[in-house]
Amino acid sequence: MRIELVNTGDELLLGDTINTNAAWLGQQIAALGLMVSRHLVVSDGAVIKDAIAEAAGRSDVVLVSGGLGPTNDDLTRESLAELLGLPLELNEGIKTHLEAYFAKRNKVMVSSNLKQAMVPRGAVVLDNPFGTAPGLYFPAELSHSRGWDTHFFLMPGPPRELKPMMETLVEPKLRSLLPDGASRAIRYFKVTGLGESDIVERVEKKLEAVPGLILGYCIRQGDVDVRLSGQPGPVEAGTAIVNEHLSDHIISTDRRLMEEVVVQELAKRGQWLATAESCTGGFLANRITDVSGASRVYGHGFITYANEAKTKHVGVPSELLEQHGAVSEPVARAMAEGALKASGADHALSLTGIAGPTGGSEDKPVGTVFIGLASKDAETRVIKAFFPGMRDRFKLLASQTALDLLRRRLFGLRLG
Amino acid sequence: MRIELVNTGDELLLGDTINTNAAWLGQQIAALGLMVSRHLVVSDGAVIKDAIAEAAGRSDVVLVSGGLGPTNDDLTRESLAELLGLPLELNEGIKTHLEAYFAKRNKVMVSSNLKQAMVPRGAVVLDNPFGTAPGLYFPAELSHSRGWDTHFFLMPGPPRELKPMMETLVEPKLRSLLPDGASRAIRYFKVTGLGESDIVERVEKKLEAVPGLILGYCIRQGDVDVRLSGQPGPVEAGTAIVNEHLSDHIISTDRRLMEEVVVQELAKRGQWLATAESCTGGFLANRITDVSGASRVYGHGFITYANEAKTKHVGVPSELLEQHGAVSEPVARAMAEGALKASGADHALSLTGIAGPTGGSEDKPVGTVFIGLASKDAETRVIKAFFPGMRDRFKLLASQTALDLLRRRLFGLRLG
Repeated sequence: MRIELVNTGDELLLGDTINTNAAWLGQQIAALGLMVSRHLVVSDGAVIKDAIAEAAGRSDVVLVSGGLGPTNDDLTRESLAELLGLPLELNEGIKTHLEAYFAKRNKVMVSSNLKQAMVPRGAVVLDNPFGTAPGLYFPAELSHSRGWDTHFFLMPGPPRELKPMMETLVEPKLRSLLPDGASRAIRYFKVTGLGESDIVERVEKKLEAVPGLILGYCIRQGDVDVRLSGQPGPVEAGTAIVNEHLSDHIISTDRRLMEEVVVQELAKRGQWLATAESCTGGFLANRITDVSGASRVYGHGFITYANEAKTKHVGVPSELLEQHGAVSEPVARAMAEGALKASGADHALSLTGIAGPTGGSEDKPVGTVFIGLASKDAETRVIKAFFPGMRDRFKLLASQTALDLLRRRLFGLRLG
Repeated sequence: MRIELVNTGDELLLGDTINTNAAWLGQQIAALGLMVSRHLVVSDGAVIKDAIAEAAGRSDVVLVSGGLGPTNDDLTRESLAELLGLPLELNEGIKTHLEAYFAKRNKVMVSSNLKQAMVPRGAVVLDNPFGTAPGLYFPAELSHSRGWDTHFFLMPGPPRELKPMMETLVEPKLRSLLPDGASRAIRYFKVTGLGESDIVERVEKKLEAVPGLILGYCIRQGDVDVRLSGQPGPVEAGTAIVNEHLSDHIISTDRRLMEEVVVQELAKRGQWLATAESCTGGFLANRITDVSGASRVYGHGFITYANEAKTKHVGVPSELLEQHGAVSEPVARAMAEGALKASGADHALSLTGIAGPTGGSEDKPVGTVFIGLASKDAETRVIKAFFPGMRDRFKLLASQTALDLLRRRLFGLRLG
């Protein structure tokens, strides 16, 4: 099945908005075992018509986002109706939704908004609970008049409206268009502590040997999503292989992030976490407090960028700093144990290292980091790691390794 | 001048990589007073040829990124050479660069890399100091054989290679193709504390009245870039208008971020900053420590998520917490003053608020935040702000407001 994606919006072409929708939709399509074959961005206004016609001539499915709003420049609905020779008819259901939407917000509905209640004859309305612009689905029959056999889906541009519409209405419809789509299963495994090549080496050949199994990766800094799709039998066989060979590197199978897994597990146990960060400068604390409900497990954090702060707030003896330097195993240990004591928490993570770009030495090059974990009921553990490169990458990977150390302790796994 | 952008790369279509290059290039083109008219993404491999041919038929300039690497799927160079009927010739300069590149990294150069040293006859090599794939410029004359009059620029896909090539080699060439491009001036103003509509109201009509001045905005959360371009005269006239009406809301005119401006100003003065964060949970500290050289101005940070942490580490009296609640003017004040004392810094910023999604009340709804600034040589100042919505937006806007408070004190401006 050939799928093309068309976006409209001057803000995309001017670079004022990064096109995250395209990547997100690409992943949704990939999860069905398909790949978008072309992705085209055009300006607001009349050019959308040519863009849709070009894509339709080559494709089984055209996904369009943007241009469903109330302004004169929003012409996606009208352009496709014109291409297919379909009259626009007022849809009373949408009109009622629009009126309610504006009333709830104490806003006046201007007449241009009624444009959004016009539906080309034969098109199926896709409800948009999060905005004013409904989506539209045009079954392939509607395109036969043009000599095409193409399904069209029109979706709004704002991600908070597009994503739920894609997940709840468009994806199931796409699935139903695939010969074996209705029964297709998808599994995700979020994996950390292994590079892409390690994952390939451990499982790729074995997974490729399962007939009918579709394998995909989404590689990010700090973790990799392994995606298995296909009929339930092959997906189950693949799941067994992944569980066996990636085992304790699997953070979650429900797409939860590392910080969510850790915070939620701490909450389940009623335990508290503290942090003492030097080189990551608050990045770890920020990840933890990004999780809703973090205040039930996280109370105290220290950013001890200066040596004096390490001594004063988390009790690192100054002799230790003088003897071993701030970036050292004993200092990471003292920071974690000091943060545990100063906070009364059950666990404390510490990081001390050289984020760069300056400050490295031959002995301790830029990228060197010591990560400590102290716990009330277990021995303190310190690991050394090395993440050279940019500062943002360093902060991300160092904090990921710290959270993984705690995850491993919480779940009783081997500590790194 | 009509410009189209073509990207190649399966990782873009599969959504594994967000296409940040497209937005960045869009901004660079917009800065020349132009707009990309179409942006097309295609798969790796042979389809790039059709994509380039389509774009060329409609455009004065085609920018292509990706597909210049050493693998069989990297066919951009070869496809355009074939379209224009140009033979590929080995370029000794590139070969030498490649050999040196691999030698420096102690890697063996395999023969497929030599593909990157092949240059279509007549094309101009664009040096790539940050990678192995040189860029290529094809002047419009080379396309006359096809009946086109189109300039082509081929650039590598990785941002760290593409961006410097665009800035130093492609942009000046594009400029020279514009009738008045060589003398065109560009000015940026990074503005904070005003919404888009405020900015429009203050300056848009006045700027639009300047003949020959091209106005653009790039709107982000927390700040807006106002961009003026055109001939030097109109740009100077526009600059005077912006300076007069946006005055102390202008953070920088050299695209520096708020945290860079603040950290660099503190460094210049030899002053130190401390932070005490509740609701922002390390986000502010992380922004500060994202700036290279932050360790010269930032030594101590406290994340006092729990009330007990506010009392223990930055000395907020527990009666104050009981009497006013953690989210209050007196607590923000005590946190800032306590952080100043505990750190010995010259300035301390504090934040206490309700990031959400839960925890709000009628009196203090989700989004409420108190921000304090204590300084050695000035009175403590506390402001109240309100940023409802998502947690990430709250953290960003609250930290931006805190940094702006300090910026205003450092530069002797009115404090909010």
